[in-house]
Amino acid sequence: MIKVGILGYGNLGRGVESALAQNADMELVGVFTRRDPASLKVASGAPVYHTDDAEKMKEQIDVMIICGGSATDLPKMTPKYAEMFNVVDSFDTHAHIPEHFAAVDAAAKKAGKIGLISCGWDPGMFSLNRVYANAILPEGKDYTFWGRGVSQGHSDAIRRIEGVKDARQYTCPVESAVEAVRAGKNPELTTRDKHTRECFVVAEEGADLARIENEIKTMPNYFDEYETTVHFISEEELQRDHAGLPHGGFVIRAGKTGDGSRKHIIEYSLKLDSNPEFTGSVLVACARAAYRMNKEGQTGGKTMLDIAPAYLCAQSGEELRAHLL
Amino acid sequence: MIKVGILGYGNLGRGVESALAQNADMELVGVFTRRDPASLKVASGAPVYHTDDAEKMKEQIDVMIICGGSATDLPKMTPKYAEMFNVVDSFDTHAHIPEHFAAVDAAAKKAGKIGLISCGWDPGMFSLNRVYANAILPEGKDYTFWGRGVSQGHSDAIRRIEGVKDARQYTCPVESAVEAVRAGKNPELTTRDKHTRECFVVAEEGADLARIENEIKTMPNYFDEYETTVHFISEEELQRDHAGLPHGGFVIRAGKTGDGSRKHIIEYSLKLDSNPEFTGSVLVACARAAYRMNKEGQTGGKTMLDIAPAYLCAQSGEELRAHLL
Repeated sequence: MIKVGILGYGNLGRGVESALAQNADMELVGVFTRRDPASLKVASGAPVYHTDDAEKMKEQIDVMIICGGSATDLPKMTPKYAEMFNVVDSFDTHAHIPEHFAAVDAAAKKAGKIGLISCGWDPGMFSLNRVYANAILPEGKDYTFWGRGVSQGHSDAIRRIEGVKDARQYTCPVESAVEAVRAGKNPELTTRDKHTRECFVVAEEGADLARIENEIKTMPNYFDEYETTVHFISEEELQRDHAGLPHGGFVIRAGKTGDGSRKHIIEYSLKLDSNPEFTGSVLVACARAAYRMNKEGQTGGKTMLDIAPAYLCAQSGEELRAHLL
Repeated sequence: MIKVGILGYGNLGRGVESALAQNADMELVGVFTRRDPASLKVASGAPVYHTDDAEKMKEQIDVMIICGGSATDLPKMTPKYAEMFNVVDSFDTHAHIPEHFAAVDAAAKKAGKIGLISCGWDPGMFSLNRVYANAILPEGKDYTFWGRGVSQGHSDAIRRIEGVKDARQYTCPVESAVEAVRAGKNPELTTRDKHTRECFVVAEEGADLARIENEIKTMPNYFDEYETTVHFISEEELQRDHAGLPHGGFVIRAGKTGDGSRKHIIEYSLKLDSNPEFTGSVLVACARAAYRMNKEGQTGGKTMLDIAPAYLCAQSGEELRAHLL
């Protein structure tokens, strides 16, 4: 049994917890929280510890899955815990991956552990598919589309506007752009051509709806470059129709071989009912790989690009060759 | 530069040759043939050698890509050349992979080389996607559809019928079955439900067309379990409309997480204008990985499931993390 700890118990921590229950070779040793452990009941009934007690449990945990936010939590937490455990995180700020990798690599190497970062679907499964497709078709063009799905960052940005009680933002791929890519037309696409943003907003009573709509649509970085739709709905409607966290998307590479006349389209797509449960499932498979790679003597910073796929699967190499190859 | 040899110069060998031209870190040292080397002109102008001279060139070749048929060539050739070189093949008889792997593993281990088998798209990229999807979603169901594309084995089978001059057979996925899988309906599908077979046949003058059609449709293993359509066409039409070797297909896994109410669909698809050029491109990326893994001290039998994706790409780990992760 691979003994796993979960550090952080938000949506992602709960996703990891439910994924562990589907993997018979793995065992949840405990959930670690910065809150008062007595205040936290976890779905599986696993023990809850304070993060201050993690260090004492070095011998009892094979892999710690760090379930924190990429903005402020993970840049500190992942290197810190990589000094004690094999760790896995889902760091997803693409622009800061090189520095996060360097910090985790140094800590993990010193401790003789594996520090596996940026696991999930993007970065994660989408990255893998970009790399495979680039390796196979060096002459070609990559396209990544996200959605239709809830962006938590964009939903939060709307909630910070005065007069907004709650909000949900969906990122939507532009169907005609996806179709042009699939057809091998290699279009040049701007940000606005690829995605639209759809917002469902619950306003405070008496709030100025026109001002809220305008503040959303003109918000720099988040909305101003996109075609954005705003729907004001009631709190009941938000609960009833927008309680889930679905997401997904497409990675497509269009390439050419031979004299350039033969076209090839490689497409990977995800349609997810629950973003955190799927991401949690990826983290759990990655925890298995981190454990196995460290057992073999590997140490230091890694990403999913460094994992031989067989390490992710519970089955043996022999079983995989006979049944899935 | 990684120095590569090609053994065998049919459609696949030519596909490898054209893929090598797209990879600046690799160099084609020579093409090896069982025919008279003087009789063979290769597209790139690379030197042509007799296979008997391969052994003398051990020091000049980093990886030999074996481009032979799976029925009789590869079971002998891959283990034989694994005693001299790092080798890569596209062995695709799924049922015999375990024994082929064992033979190549033994030879490669003895020689201190890498013997990488079953590279291509199925087995190959489709296998990888089955393994990733199974690792992430242990509770789910796999579906693989092939086509629309030319099956060379089925085309050959038709050509062996008396009165047939030439033939091309297309394997076609049943659209409604693919749609049901994509919609997460987890259908139970028989062989007949998943694919149809479409045959374009050039008959000898005066041949009995009704007999040929009947022999095709009732041929055991190849056609009797499928809904099969036969079109008789002229030699000119065959040349004009069916000269290419397109192929492709879909790997889909439908799985559940949490309490089972959240569904997830993972789909990987390929749409290929040229099956041998795409397969050749996969073999070339795999040759890069075999070279790197052997450089690091790894030896023995391997499949794509054992390759960390970063090994396949010309870019460094740093570049991949910064731009593709």
